[in-house]
Amino acid sequence: MSVKITIDDLPDLARGAAFLGTGGGGNPYVGQLMVKLAMMETGRELELMDLHDVPDDALIIPTAMMGAPTCIVEKLPQGMEAALSLRRLEQHLAKKVFATMPIEAGGVNSMIPLVVALRLGIPVVDADGMGRAFPELFHETFHIYGVSGTPMVITNEHGDQSVIETHDNYMAEWLARGITIRMGGVSYIAEYPMDGATAKRASISGTISVCLLIGRAIRFSREHQLNPFSHLINTLSQTTYSPARIIFTGKISGVLRRTTDGFAKGRVNIEELEVPVENRRVLEIEFQNENLIARTESGTLAVVPDLICILDSETAEPITTEDLRYGQRVRVMAVSVPAIMRTKAALAVWGPRQFGFNIDYVSMDCNLPTV
Amino acid sequence: MSVKITIDDLPDLARGAAFLGTGGGGNPYVGQLMVKLAMMETGRELELMDLHDVPDDALIIPTAMMGAPTCIVEKLPQGMEAALSLRRLEQHLAKKVFATMPIEAGGVNSMIPLVVALRLGIPVVDADGMGRAFPELFHETFHIYGVSGTPMVITNEHGDQSVIETHDNYMAEWLARGITIRMGGVSYIAEYPMDGATAKRASISGTISVCLLIGRAIRFSREHQLNPFSHLINTLSQTTYSPARIIFTGKISGVLRRTTDGFAKGRVNIEELEVPVENRRVLEIEFQNENLIARTESGTLAVVPDLICILDSETAEPITTEDLRYGQRVRVMAVSVPAIMRTKAALAVWGPRQFGFNIDYVSMDCNLPTV
Repeated sequence: MSVKITIDDLPDLARGAAFLGTGGGGNPYVGQLMVKLAMMETGRELELMDLHDVPDDALIIPTAMMGAPTCIVEKLPQGMEAALSLRRLEQHLAKKVFATMPIEAGGVNSMIPLVVALRLGIPVVDADGMGRAFPELFHETFHIYGVSGTPMVITNEHGDQSVIETHDNYMAEWLARGITIRMGGVSYIAEYPMDGATAKRASISGTISVCLLIGRAIRFSREHQLNPFSHLINTLSQTTYSPARIIFTGKISGVLRRTTDGFAKGRVNIEELEVPVENRRVLEIEFQNENLIARTESGTLAVVPDLICILDSETAEPITTEDLRYGQRVRVMAVSVPAIMRTKAALAVWGPRQFGFNIDYVSMDCNLPTV
Repeated sequence: MSVKITIDDLPDLARGAAFLGTGGGGNPYVGQLMVKLAMMETGRELELMDLHDVPDDALIIPTAMMGAPTCIVEKLPQGMEAALSLRRLEQHLAKKVFATMPIEAGGVNSMIPLVVALRLGIPVVDADGMGRAFPELFHETFHIYGVSGTPMVITNEHGDQSVIETHDNYMAEWLARGITIRMGGVSYIAEYPMDGATAKRASISGTISVCLLIGRAIRFSREHQLNPFSHLINTLSQTTYSPARIIFTGKISGVLRRTTDGFAKGRVNIEELEVPVENRRVLEIEFQNENLIARTESGTLAVVPDLICILDSETAEPITTEDLRYGQRVRVMAVSVPAIMRTKAALAVWGPRQFGFNIDYVSMDCNLPTV
């Protein structure tokens, strides 16, 4: 089964990608424009290939933008960068690529592989390696389930390129991040080359379709004067991204954000409204590109790998970390993630302790109060 | 004509390399040990090939260590790193290498290509691309005279590798430096691949022999109770590194040295002795890996690209920037460099202004007082 994407679907896809981006993944509007341009310039149709339709021996090369979301909005790409990375990796492997796929289903990185697919006339697989957005290249199910991240290729807007081969995936992230910083905070990569059989074993299936579903649900609720939050939660309950709940409602009372070490790092405070001042709780969300943990004085309300999505309190439009501003009225939604993202092996890579939080992951089902 | 190097020549070669390293180029003792080990392990003879004996269509791949001298003494190599870079570049170019050569005739980098030659059983050319040591990869006559620095390969002690291709040689340095920093401040490179005809046009011939000549002259003067400084100056007068003069004598009264941005940057102050305190001049030498400028209150005594060599005041042993210590008694020798290093094109790359000094280069002949 394959899903067609038309030019009219792009705003929904971008909105859903921003949601799964859980604050990060890069501004999906940039990605939306890139896909639109590629559609118009190539005249090609865009179709998502189902993961199960990929031949076992076909070469899959995932593609992505790498960098700090704060840089991505300032430094727009030419459009061919990620495709050039893929072609260079193909050349290095001396094997023809069958299809590309996202490494993360969030933000701009749900869109980059669509651009690559359009530009090169190859299929794009409806799956990814994170099931959301995460900040680093080893935060991928590909890594968790034993795929080598290298050889990988990095390209910038001048066509400068680097082919990286490392002894492990942590070194690959470390070197690639260093190069990305020197390229001005944004680069375009092709990595974790694998065959179809491996892709079926190591990726999260159907996540681009989920983005589209989420984006459409939010738009539909607006157009039909439904409560976008309950409509979205209902929609998510038909997917593996469930349960989902609103964990906090309030006004942004402070944002601290620094572009450092190649990431956008910081925290946002959200203050409750409509309760007497002396009883107002404050939610603090820490982020490294993506929202990692949401805490009040009395405890943790949600933590990685569960999604923590900051949504406009009227429209449910997702707000990415680089767009957070003082005074925004928001609702914070926490969402449980698919089982493949909550295994022991997965939590050893992207559980709370891996980000420096001294707590174990507890699934949303157990620790979230109903709001 | 070719020059044989025996195991007994290595201390002289290292000493001369430290001299031409003009403070930098990395600790040549480390390089000496590497060559010795490679000689013993491979049982091969070491012979320097004259630049004019290189066939015009032969592939030459220069090799080197890259990084901060302060890191090089802390992080010893396995021995095969630079050879692996060369092999990877050979594979990338799909062409067999004929010989390697140094990129700089100074410090450890006079020795690394000898290690590569021994390990791989290929010739090493008696020439280089700086005629001394300089801190950055575009400070090479190869760059000045139109050779592309890329494709280049970087390898570390774990065998992690990166192949870099950039739109210019400045970007190559910028990315390679970033990778080197992430590799812990030291890496091993193969770059500026070129044919023999280009090597003849764009390199400085005979510089490894000059290292040997200098190292031998210093040893000879010690063994024969000659004044090592005047003997060295006499020896240099038979080469293109002439005139040479002692510009200052004194005691190191302060060293400021920071390993930053992938370089060892800082300055050293040298105070005159044997003059009344109220008349004592202080010489300040600024360095970025290499000594760049030597100034007193009354003016500049020497500046890049001329050599500024800090020598032990008794033995004339060169002291590299990472070995400078308070209290050392030293003499500072300034040396004029070969004409190819003082052309307009060369000064546009490594003249004083390129290092941020607001003066024009004046050849030693004009601006140095006789001491």
